Amino acid sequence: MSMMNRQLVLRQRPKNLCAPGDLELAEATVPELNDGEALAQVKYLSIDPTMRVWMAVDSYLPAVGIGEVMRAFGFAEVVESRSKEFKKGDKVVGLAGLQEYAVINADDKKRGFQKVPNIPFLSDTAFLGVLGITGLTAFFGMEIGAPKKGETLVVSAAAGATGSIAGQIGKIHGCRVVGIAGTDEKCKWITEELGFDAAVNYKHADWKEKLAAATPQGIDINFENVGGEVMQEVLSRMNLFGRVVLCGLISGYTKGDPGLVSFSNVLVKRLRVQGFIIIDFASRFMEAATKLGQWKMFGKIKDRETIVEGLEKAPEAINMLFTGGNIGKTLVKV
Amino acid sequence: MSMMNRQLVLRQRPKNLCAPGDLELAEATVPELNDGEALAQVKYLSIDPTMRVWMAVDSYLPAVGIGEVMRAFGFAEVVESRSKEFKKGDKVVGLAGLQEYAVINADDKKRGFQKVPNIPFLSDTAFLGVLGITGLTAFFGMEIGAPKKGETLVVSAAAGATGSIAGQIGKIHGCRVVGIAGTDEKCKWITEELGFDAAVNYKHADWKEKLAAATPQGIDINFENVGGEVMQEVLSRMNLFGRVVLCGLISGYTKGDPGLVSFSNVLVKRLRVQGFIIIDFASRFMEAATKLGQWKMFGKIKDRETIVEGLEKAPEAINMLFTGGNIGKTLVKV
Repeated sequence: MSMMNRQLVLRQRPKNLCAPGDLELAEATVPELNDGEALAQVKYLSIDPTMRVWMAVDSYLPAVGIGEVMRAFGFAEVVESRSKEFKKGDKVVGLAGLQEYAVINADDKKRGFQKVPNIPFLSDTAFLGVLGITGLTAFFGMEIGAPKKGETLVVSAAAGATGSIAGQIGKIHGCRVVGIAGTDEKCKWITEELGFDAAVNYKHADWKEKLAAATPQGIDINFENVGGEVMQEVLSRMNLFGRVVLCGLISGYTKGDPGLVSFSNVLVKRLRVQGFIIIDFASRFMEAATKLGQWKMFGKIKDRETIVEGLEKAPEAINMLFTGGNIGKTLVKV
Repeated sequence: MSMMNRQLVLRQRPKNLCAPGDLELAEATVPELNDGEALAQVKYLSIDPTMRVWMAVDSYLPAVGIGEVMRAFGFAEVVESRSKEFKKGDKVVGLAGLQEYAVINADDKKRGFQKVPNIPFLSDTAFLGVLGITGLTAFFGMEIGAPKKGETLVVSAAAGATGSIAGQIGKIHGCRVVGIAGTDEKCKWITEELGFDAAVNYKHADWKEKLAAATPQGIDINFENVGGEVMQEVLSRMNLFGRVVLCGLISGYTKGDPGLVSFSNVLVKRLRVQGFIIIDFASRFMEAATKLGQWKMFGKIKDRETIVEGLEKAPEAINMLFTGGNIGKTLVKV
């Protein structure tokens, strides 16, 4: 009696946003398990901007192949096991893919499945968000930013899953924190709920003046998720010896790379611009997740989720990251 | 009996290259010395790309004011003194300005005059070049680059005063060193005389293929003096965790800032891009000059000068830096 597995398969590489036909819903039979394997039922899928890159080009990971199940982090529960490491009932996170069931194997380092503990004050989805890939990204990115008390931190895509945590880590370090976001609702959330000192809606015509007013002492750290015009403006307000933590360039993921009109501030201001990818820090995930968990437990970090119901809605959920429809961590409930 | 001092005064800010009328030859009377001052006769003037920036805009130093003597480093000899620190016959370096005589004062930190020693194997001009501002720039830039044995270093403007020293420091550290320059003569000099492993003339149509062939293992360190298209191409060949030492962006000094068409490699390759300005390292100049002097003495670093005769030729000498007419350190003999 074979079980069916609904999957979203990459059929063609998107040109701009995900279009109908780029990801196609398909059904496959769940295969028999081999020794060492376990079958995990996917409960939640993590929807991240980097997925749009994975659909299009080789980058820090190879592009997803045409005809393959789309790559995605997921939270899953083991329902059947021939593995010593993963028992029935275990909760796991890893690169589950956009599908209902994933066959997992402790030896498969590329997909990196790990068991997650039951912690009373944490929801399962926290292991994809605040304690998961996006929270960890904020944590290590802020380590690169090396914040000092009294410095000014500017975060772009500040109401996103990573930006919202990065800004709160800045507050923990005693920085003045200014967020840039694309709706007044997002600006309100990060200032009133998360404790950012100021927020700037870059869709308002006077946003550059607002950014200047919000950063009277200039900018020491730029936690950059967007690139292009937003980054260019922030660069122009950086202080001497400032740090630009290059976490993402989402303004270029669905259009052409916007580049930078001027690069001279990096020289004149003696900036350090550093790109990073979270997978390079895998050996320190436990240390960082422990710290993030403490902050979360003591209310120093708050998070929020935008949950989209249904595997088939995943393409829309991906597009929300680029059209601004999400706040906080975007998840698909399978 | 008053002495006359010929000076080049900034009359208008250049638009592209220095044009007639931007710098004007003028005569002033050498003033009477006050207590603490000395009169130094300028022998050699250092001609550096950064001067073009100083003529145009406020940057890491304020722009030279209209009507002021043009700022420049110089080597000078004290001819008259009411200073305890500077005696008649002392040799000094500092921001002399484009003029025949400079009144200097040990308390004037902004112009930073310092005595230089008599060292048998060193010419006086070495204190403007290999042991001076350009050699020090190469030294601290390469420290930022953190070269490791076996890595590949690419230097742009590689036959210039700073690039030529930076590449040789790379060789001392055991790197494969590839230079980018704009004439076959320069390419020949850096490979045959300075020991670079390869050189690429970016004015040849196939320079990108040549750069690829010269960097079969990719690029770990980019010592960048030029910016724009050259930097863009180098970025595309950078290895994971590479370092971009941003020393100059001369492609933008006489035209508009060329920016960068794409910035995504900094993220995907996890690069560290770091701008620096030599004046930030002033407290370590002696340490670095001592090391550079040792390398020079033992033949590990070679240098070359392009000497232009006559103060009035300084504007042409500045332009040579941007039209490619110079090799090694460019000096004006006053």
